[in-house]
This record gives sequence, structure tokens and C-alpha cells, in this order.
Amino acid sequence: MRLKTKNLRWYAGRPVVIIGKETSKKLNIHVDERIYVRHNNKKVFAVVDIFHGLVNANEIGLSNEVSSVLGSKEGEYVNLEVANLFAGARLIRKKIDGAELNPEEIKTIVTEITNNNLTEAELAYFLAAEKLVGMTHKETIALTDAMVNTGRKLDFEKEIIADKHCIGGIAGNRTTPIVVSICAAAGLTIPKNSSRAITSAAGTADVMETITKVELSLEEIKKVVKNVGACLVWNGSLNLSPSDDKLIQVERLLNLDVEPQLLASILSKKIAAGSNRILIDIPYGGGKMKTKHDAKRLGNQFKDLAGHFNVKLKPLYTDGRQPIGNGMGPVLEMKDVISVLKNEPDCPKDLKEKSILLAGEILSMCGMFFAGSKARHILEYGGAYEKFKEIVNAQNGTKDFDKRVAALKTAKYYKYVYAQKDGELVIGNSKLNELCRILGTPETATAGVYLHMHNGRVKERDKIMTLYAENPQKMEDGLQYIKEDHIFTIN
Amino acid sequence: MRLKTKNLRWYAGRPVVIIGKETSKKLNIHVDERIYVRHNNKKVFAVVDIFHGLVNANEIGLSNEVSSVLGSKEGEYVNLEVANLFAGARLIRKKIDGAELNPEEIKTIVTEITNNNLTEAELAYFLAAEKLVGMTHKETIALTDAMVNTGRKLDFEKEIIADKHCIGGIAGNRTTPIVVSICAAAGLTIPKNSSRAITSAAGTADVMETITKVELSLEEIKKVVKNVGACLVWNGSLNLSPSDDKLIQVERLLNLDVEPQLLASILSKKIAAGSNRILIDIPYGGGKMKTKHDAKRLGNQFKDLAGHFNVKLKPLYTDGRQPIGNGMGPVLEMKDVISVLKNEPDCPKDLKEKSILLAGEILSMCGMFFAGSKARHILEYGGAYEKFKEIVNAQNGTKDFDKRVAALKTAKYYKYVYAQKDGELVIGNSKLNELCRILGTPETATAGVYLHMHNGRVKERDKIMTLYAENPQKMEDGLQYIKEDHIFTIN
Repeated sequence: MRLKTKNLRWYAGRPVVIIGKETSKKLNIHVDERIYVRHNNKKVFAVVDIFHGLVNANEIGLSNEVSSVLGSKEGEYVNLEVANLFAGARLIRKKIDGAELNPEEIKTIVTEITNNNLTEAELAYFLAAEKLVGMTHKETIALTDAMVNTGRKLDFEKEIIADKHCIGGIAGNRTTPIVVSICAAAGLTIPKNSSRAITSAAGTADVMETITKVELSLEEIKKVVKNVGACLVWNGSLNLSPSDDKLIQVERLLNLDVEPQLLASILSKKIAAGSNRILIDIPYGGGKMKTKHDAKRLGNQFKDLAGHFNVKLKPLYTDGRQPIGNGMGPVLEMKDVISVLKNEPDCPKDLKEKSILLAGEILSMCGMFFAGSKARHILEYGGAYEKFKEIVNAQNGTKDFDKRVAALKTAKYYKYVYAQKDGELVIGNSKLNELCRILGTPETATAGVYLHMHNGRVKERDKIMTLYAENPQKMEDGLQYIKEDHIFTIN
Repeated sequence: MRLKTKNLRWYAGRPVVIIGKETSKKLNIHVDERIYVRHNNKKVFAVVDIFHGLVNANEIGLSNEVSSVLGSKEGEYVNLEVANLFAGARLIRKKIDGAELNPEEIKTIVTEITNNNLTEAELAYFLAAEKLVGMTHKETIALTDAMVNTGRKLDFEKEIIADKHCIGGIAGNRTTPIVVSICAAAGLTIPKNSSRAITSAAGTADVMETITKVELSLEEIKKVVKNVGACLVWNGSLNLSPSDDKLIQVERLLNLDVEPQLLASILSKKIAAGSNRILIDIPYGGGKMKTKHDAKRLGNQFKDLAGHFNVKLKPLYTDGRQPIGNGMGPVLEMKDVISVLKNEPDCPKDLKEKSILLAGEILSMCGMFFAGSKARHILEYGGAYEKFKEIVNAQNGTKDFDKRVAALKTAKYYKYVYAQKDGELVIGNSKLNELCRILGTPETATAGVYLHMHNGRVKERDKIMTLYAENPQKMEDGLQYIKEDHIFTIN
């Protein structure tokens, strides 16, 4: 069926077409059914919506996700076809019913997610099944493989490509910009791509975005890495593992962590990016891994999985009992990072020492000697800060690093939180992350929490933290959350 | 924030407002976040969408779900407020993590589903958790109770109100219109409200809709029941258990059956409708219950649950090894129903006998003697057909039953399927249902499958079934499905 396009300048988040009642009747298709739209030689798969009054009988409204792929201009004609059935939903149902899926079946699901053939609710079912039914080792390998092969692959034309990843769960803990700067200053190639926040107050990409462009094209990234040996970019625009980005959106609804998905998500992006020396930071004793036993189990799964893809991987088990650094939220974390890179006397010591430890491990994995003291030297003598400045300027394509640092501002509304008695302060990681999200992070980069104290002795009326929000309702929600849920305890 | 309304004549399926980039920036809200819209004394909770170019900076676009509740006219002003956080999502996460929820927590989830505060993906998580983590007996009672108390309750001002329900899973099996007609002809009050299809080719409401109005107001239903003793209406418009309708939509995506949800869904609607004599048809040996043991376990759960709500409930365990009746799909099933009610010599005997059995049990539960032979007599001597005609005409508010029956038509495209060898034919229930859905049921009422044979001996070239579809692509998909998945086997 031929219809005249109306481009609606509308980002629907997925390809959607809007048709009138007459068209839906003629094609015998209904809301939420799926169709193909063709234009010249391009074809897009889209979800149907019916919107009375917005389009005429012979018209079709296209969301930007459709018109940009088709390259269709307003008023041009496109063809509509009823789409075939999709196997993905049936396979997800099979997994919920307890079956082990074979690699071909898993590839089908991942391909359909990549092609936007499944709804968010279907993705939620898949994630719940992964979590609650569980995935075998074979299934996780197949999932990783499918995720690598449905996206783009990078090639930096170097023999050794270093990378790091933290499984998350620890508030703050923004080591990546520091570690990457140290390693690149030591001469390694470390093209770091990071996600935005999943369950935390901010992801590395959210934090870097406060000071630099993080959505770079592949060509731009290659140029940056060639010139300065490293980058700190967002992985979503790279299309390395497109299904993962969609799954993460659905995981975020409940701040859910799904272990097989976590393994596949992390490794698929590293492998697609060409990394072959990978350090995985696995904090335990808080955050996601309660005990060292849990942490080691996950670390071993990472090692096993990496072995199937010819990648050298080292899990590092670190202290996860409390937040690392003082700031939580994109801008607040960037301020910590800069303070450590400048080696300021009052910089967060925990963040500094952990960054040196991780960087040393990576240097060692890549064959360097005296790696730990080398890492410390590079940080303390300004080499890492210089390298960070180079990376930020290279990504921005400007030389205005200092101006950007000076412009970093926290949110308009702020409130102090004080200790109400003397005692031992204990601050939880996950509740702190939740508090930050209530205050508006990561979408609101200037929001978040600044910790004036870490776990230890406090006195009545000590200032424990400052909350930041751009919206009075969110500030009120944050204060309410502190009152009702125990963000910290004093014993 | 005050904005001028633009009514978009758009049914979004849930309350959605469309704002421009400027408004989103000012309020610091983002796509998929939730807000309150106020107008006069009315307040609606809605999801935010950002749609460049459709609304101006000072305007807000309202989906019909918003404007109809607010009663706002185009050009009037409404107020926007950032909404508080919702506990529902956090509680669903808690359930996924394995916790038992208390009644208050379950009520919170159900209330938030009712108020459209949760996304479809969040509902999918909840259903997956119910299925895979499981619900305790206490949780299921609380779920049922919450579902009863978040909706409307009916009162037919009779001491005994009879009702029936089949847990489904058997293709065809459209006993309800026949059973209700027999019982009402025997003098019982049996105001039957039914759902649309969940996993089957059609629900009773879909089938009744081929011949009568099924979306009646409460007042209309009361009038119909007062006049003819029974009704056969759709429960979705009754608002008896509004959360259930939303959950069923999400279950349907994967044709998923979630047992605690099934129990709560069925009983909450019966209890809210005032029923106190309930027969539950539980087929086993095929369909949803593989063994009589499974069927009895479910039946006992129904009895236990009903006991908490002062309702007399009887589970009846019936033969679920093959489809009941010949037609599958709304129109095809209605043709079977009418044929049985007219007691035509070639009517489907299995459907007739099962309907008499069920009706006899209900008459007996309501205190009648010789209930089985009474039910048979009423059916075979035309009393049930007369009653059915009365019900249909009463719901339509017309006298044109015969004309409507004559107008029942099957779909434009049809294909015969033949036996390819001699042997024992075995037809599966669930695959037959899936085949019907591929052909377009229940949305396309005229589509479906007609069985020329049931399980037993067949000869090569015997006509086994006819497929019906209104769309050649769907017919092709159906034929492909028969080829790939074994809809029937001949051994």
C-alpha cells in the first residue's frame, strides 16, 4: 500500500508509524502490530500507532527513527507491508518456561532486539528469565557472541589494546578517567568507551560529558586515539552492541542487575572494540557482591567467558564496603576526578589510591615492570593530568580545557544533612545511588550528593553530606527518602 | 506550570502528554517521566513524551485518556506538576529479588497499575516474578483482595448468583453461551461477564461480539439481567478489576500463563460481580494442565482462595486432550454455539455434552434436583435457544437476532488442509490456538480454523481442517506454521 509521508519531527525512541483508521482497516493491522515501510531500496520495520486527525487517509506519519533510515522527505511516497511473524517472542516464552536455548535461538532474540522487533515488555520478560531461570555457560557464550556480531567492530591497528571495567554498585568510584589517563601517559593504547548509568548516580560517559563531547563518530575516535593514545567516550553512539543499549534501558526501570546479561554486555562491548587486555574491578563486601566468594565466582565467570574469545582478562577484587570519592553525580564526580589528577592535597585519597592500584595492574598486564610505582609517579608528577587535558581537548576539538573546568557548576538547590548523634557512621552504597537518582541524576548532571565524611566516628551536628537538585520537588523527595529509608546509620 | 491544551484526538492506550523541549527543560523532566496534570478539580497522572513541532512552547498535547478525564477543551489551560516517586517499581524489584510482599505492598502495586503509574515493561517484570519467584498463599489472597477493592462492585440484589469459568487452554470449547442459556432458562440468575482472549483464538466476549453488543454500561447490564436473568458481556468495560485488564495485555505478548495471577484474576472479577456459586472448569490431559494431579492442585487452590471470600466454588475436572467443538475463532465458534443451541443433528456432540454436564453441575450447586437431566431437557427442547435469543436481543436492544445469525460470515481467504497419509490423527490444543492467532484471531473475528475431524482414524486425502484469514500474508504465515510446527500428527 502506497502512502504519502508526513515527517513528524518526533523521536519516539523506536521506529513508529502513525496511520489513520482507514489504512488500518484496509491492511487489517492494529495498534502495536508491526509492519515494514519501504522507500527506494531501504526498508524499516516499525510499530503501528493509530492517531486520528494527525494524518489523512492517504498519509502516513513517520517518527524520526523511520524517516532518517529511509531518507524520505515530507510528501514522498512509501510502501507499507504487513510483517511476518517474529520468532523472538516465542523463544523468550520458551526461556521463561525453563528451556536452554541453543546459539541459533539466542542469536534470533538478539537480532530481533537489535532490529527493534520486540517491545520493552518482551525485553523485560527476557531479562527476568535470564535472572530467574538463569542461563547456562553455553547460553552466556552464545549471548556474548550474538551481541558482538550484531554490532560494529573497531580496529585500532595495535597489537595490545588495554581496557578496564568496574561491575559497579559502588557510589562514586569514578576511577576510569584517572586510570585511562595514567595508562595512556605510560604509553598504552586504551580507547575507553563507557556506558551511561545503569543503577548508579552516573556512568563514566555521564561524568565525562560534563566537560567534553562523548558522542563521537568512529572516525573521530580513531583520530583521537591515534593522537593521544586514549579516549573516554560513550559507547551508545558506537553501535558496538546495539541490543545491549535497549536491554539496559529496560533494566534501568527497576535498577535490575541480571548477571548473564552483565557478563555478555561488558565482554561483548570490549571484544567488539578490539580490546585484548582487560582488567575487571569487582568490589565486594557491599554494592553488588556481598562476599569475596560471590566476587570470585563472578570473576571466574568473566575469565572463562573471556577465554572463549581469546582475550586476556584479570579480575581484581576490591573493597566495596563504602563509596569511593566524595562526589556522587556527574558534575560532583568530575570535580573529584580533577582534584585527584591535579594531586591536590585535599583530594579524595581513596579515589586516588584505588586509581593507582588499577592503573598499575593494567600496566603490569601489558608487560611493564615496576608497574605500581610507575602509575603513582605518573599521577603524582602531573603526567596523568596533562594526558587527561589532551584527551578532553582532543574529543572537543578545542583547547579550552581550563575554561570548561572552571565552568563546572553544581545544582541551584542544596541542603546539608547533619549527624543527629555521636557514633559510628555507616553509609550504604545502593541507597546512596538511589538517593542521587531521586535528586535527578544522571539526567540532571548538576544534581547529586557530596559526602563530607566517610564511614567512621562522627559527632552530633557534624555535616555528613550536601544534597543538590535543580527542582524543589526532587529535593523534597530526596529529603523524604533520607527520612524513611536509612541512607546512613550512626551506631 | 500553566500550559494551553491541544487535544490530539489520540488514543495512546494510557495517559500521555506531549510537551516541547522548552517545557521539558523548564520543569527538568524527561521522556517517560511521570507528571500530574490538573484542570479545575480533576487530576490525571500521565507519562511525558517530547514531540518537536507538534506543540508550541506554551502548549501541551493531551492524549484522549487525559482530556476525557480532565474534561478539558482545546485551548483551555491546565497545570503541570512533577509527580512524586512511585513505590510500585521498587516493590516489584523486591519481589524479583525473592521477597514475600505483605498485603499493603501488594495493594500498592495493584493501585499503581490501576492508576497507570507503571509501564508495560514493569508489569512484565511483575508477571515474570509471580511466575518464576512464585507467590505464597497469603500473597495470592492479598492480590485477589486488592484487585477486588481497586475496582467497581456489582449488586444484582439476589441471594444466589451463579457463575462459571473455564481456565482455558482448550481450543474451541465455547460452552459458556450454552451453559448460561440453560441455567437462565432453568430460572437461575447468571450475569456472566467474560474476558477477551488471553492465549486462545477467542474469548467468550470476542465470540458474543460477533452477534451482539458486549460493552454494556452497568445500568444496561442490570436491566438485561432483570429482564432475562442473564447476560453475556465483556468484563473490560465494567471496571471490575481494572488492573487485571492491563496485566492481561502484557501476558498476551508472550501468551504467558501466570498461575497466581490466573487465580486472582478469575476470582477477583467473580467476587466483584457478586457471584457466590462458581463452577470452575479445569480441563486436564492437554491444554494448561498436563495431568489430573496438576488440575486438582489448581482446583484446590481455587477452593482455598474462594473460602477466604465466602464463596461456594466447585472445580470440575474435564477432558482436555483435544479441542471441543469444530470452530476456532470468534465467528466460527458462534456458528458452533448456535448449532448446539438449535440442537441440529450435525451439531458438535462434544460441545453439546460438555455444556449439559457443566450446566447440570451449576443447577445442582444452586440446589436443584435431577439437575443433569433437567439441563439436557432444557437444551434439547429449545428452552436454551429461546433464552439465548432473549439475551442477545436484550443486549442489543433490538429484536433482530435471526438477521444477525444469518449475517455471520467467515473470512474471505480460505485453504483446506488434507491428511497426507492414513493413520491416527492427533491435534494439539496450544498449537491450534497459536495457528488461529497467526491467522488473525481474535482481532479478526472472521478468521480461524474449522476442524473437519477430531482425534482418531483418518485416511490419506481426508480433509482435516479449513483455515480462514482476511489477509494473504497471514494465510501464508499460517500455512508456513503448519509446515514447520506440527499442528497435528498422523501416526
